[in-house]
Amino acid sequence: MQKYFISEEDFANNRITSDDVFHIKNVMRGKIGDEVLVGCNGKSYLVKLTKISSEVNFEIVEEKIGNHELPISVSIYQGYPKSDKIEEIIKHSTELGATSIVPTLMKRSVFKLDEKKKDSKLIRFQRIAKEAAEQSFRDVVPEIKDIVKLNRVDFSAFNKRILCFEEDAKEGEASNFKSVITSLEPGDNVAVVIGPEGGIDLDEVEWLKSQGFVSCAVGPRILRTETVVFYVLSAISYEMELKK
Amino acid sequence: MQKYFISEEDFANNRITSDDVFHIKNVMRGKIGDEVLVGCNGKSYLVKLTKISSEVNFEIVEEKIGNHELPISVSIYQGYPKSDKIEEIIKHSTELGATSIVPTLMKRSVFKLDEKKKDSKLIRFQRIAKEAAEQSFRDVVPEIKDIVKLNRVDFSAFNKRILCFEEDAKEGEASNFKSVITSLEPGDNVAVVIGPEGGIDLDEVEWLKSQGFVSCAVGPRILRTETVVFYVLSAISYEMELKK
Repeated sequence: MQKYFISEEDFANNRITSDDVFHIKNVMRGKIGDEVLVGCNGKSYLVKLTKISSEVNFEIVEEKIGNHELPISVSIYQGYPKSDKIEEIIKHSTELGATSIVPTLMKRSVFKLDEKKKDSKLIRFQRIAKEAAEQSFRDVVPEIKDIVKLNRVDFSAFNKRILCFEEDAKEGEASNFKSVITSLEPGDNVAVVIGPEGGIDLDEVEWLKSQGFVSCAVGPRILRTETVVFYVLSAISYEMELKK
Repeated sequence: MQKYFISEEDFANNRITSDDVFHIKNVMRGKIGDEVLVGCNGKSYLVKLTKISSEVNFEIVEEKIGNHELPISVSIYQGYPKSDKIEEIIKHSTELGATSIVPTLMKRSVFKLDEKKKDSKLIRFQRIAKEAAEQSFRDVVPEIKDIVKLNRVDFSAFNKRILCFEEDAKEGEASNFKSVITSLEPGDNVAVVIGPEGGIDLDEVEWLKSQGFVSCAVGPRILRTETVVFYVLSAISYEMELKK
């Protein structure tokens, strides 16, 4: 069943607006009486469509109780990668349960920020996250934060800090990541730092360690930057959400 | 350091041929005396370049001992997805340690096989796997098998059989996957079946269950087909390769 995240204002008015109207009409070929899921403020509702015009109106059938969120908050500080890989990362990280994604400029990021294009980029990123959250039945849409420089980030709000560092993988380090992940408890607020294609500069590694980050290898193979975040989020889900 | 997988014949002749020569010359800007890694027959060697012309010659410096392979064999039967997602799946599954990847036609695969293009497609897939294996420091290149129909597959060689089924995720199933993964032992031969975009048809699910497959949800969110395999391989690596 298709899900649409809508604003509080639209929810209060039992309506769906914006791009979602196009989607209901032209992609889903929606008809009056069809049921869809509506997400608002962390809650999900089964609704029935009552009118389809320039906006779509609905009546609520029932609230759907169900938890599709990780029991912890995970913020991904992703070293800004080449080309449009950041979009792939936003899409799949959303499916895998990330709470927020922060495109982060690091020393070895090749990407050059064009301030004029930044706002439209962030709007596009947020739309990718919304669509991926709808598709994966998330209860909330992850927040895509403003592009930041790594050395300007204040990590004080996080009580667990994970640095994924490929040099550790090359040296056979194999216990730090699992030690951190098995120590996680519901409600924890976790920061994960992942370098761009060229890896994290050693000065940055030292600074992150001084900020309390635990340097971890995610398995013995050298993963591409976009694959690291899939590993991290999958392992968190596997450890915390699945039972034997 | 760059790695190149070469044939036994080339290894016996201390040479690198084919596309890799272009890569050494034009991408790496290789010079005589440079060191690279050469992979052959599951072993890795540090070698020094001794001549660069239409082929590249080398002398062996030392064998590099190190294990970058999962302790089990994992064959991915991936429901053939839309567009070029199969290439993304081959690339990242290789990084994450898959032993073989089998593009599999299932009832809901939209992809139509063009027999005339099949051979060039398979050559391209195998090249993607080779490059991803080099980049991720694998000891072997996964085999990309011929495109098959699901109902023609003989799964008798596998002693563990995992079916990733999204309806289980919708119904809150949360223990089968972890039960199977924690039961894995080194040397196991595992088959993993993943549906295409539209999911696995119920007839196919029943047939797979009759073949001994355990139907599993991979977390409470509905993952895209290409994300499922990342979750499965990451969880296997996390469970078997990392220590607390």
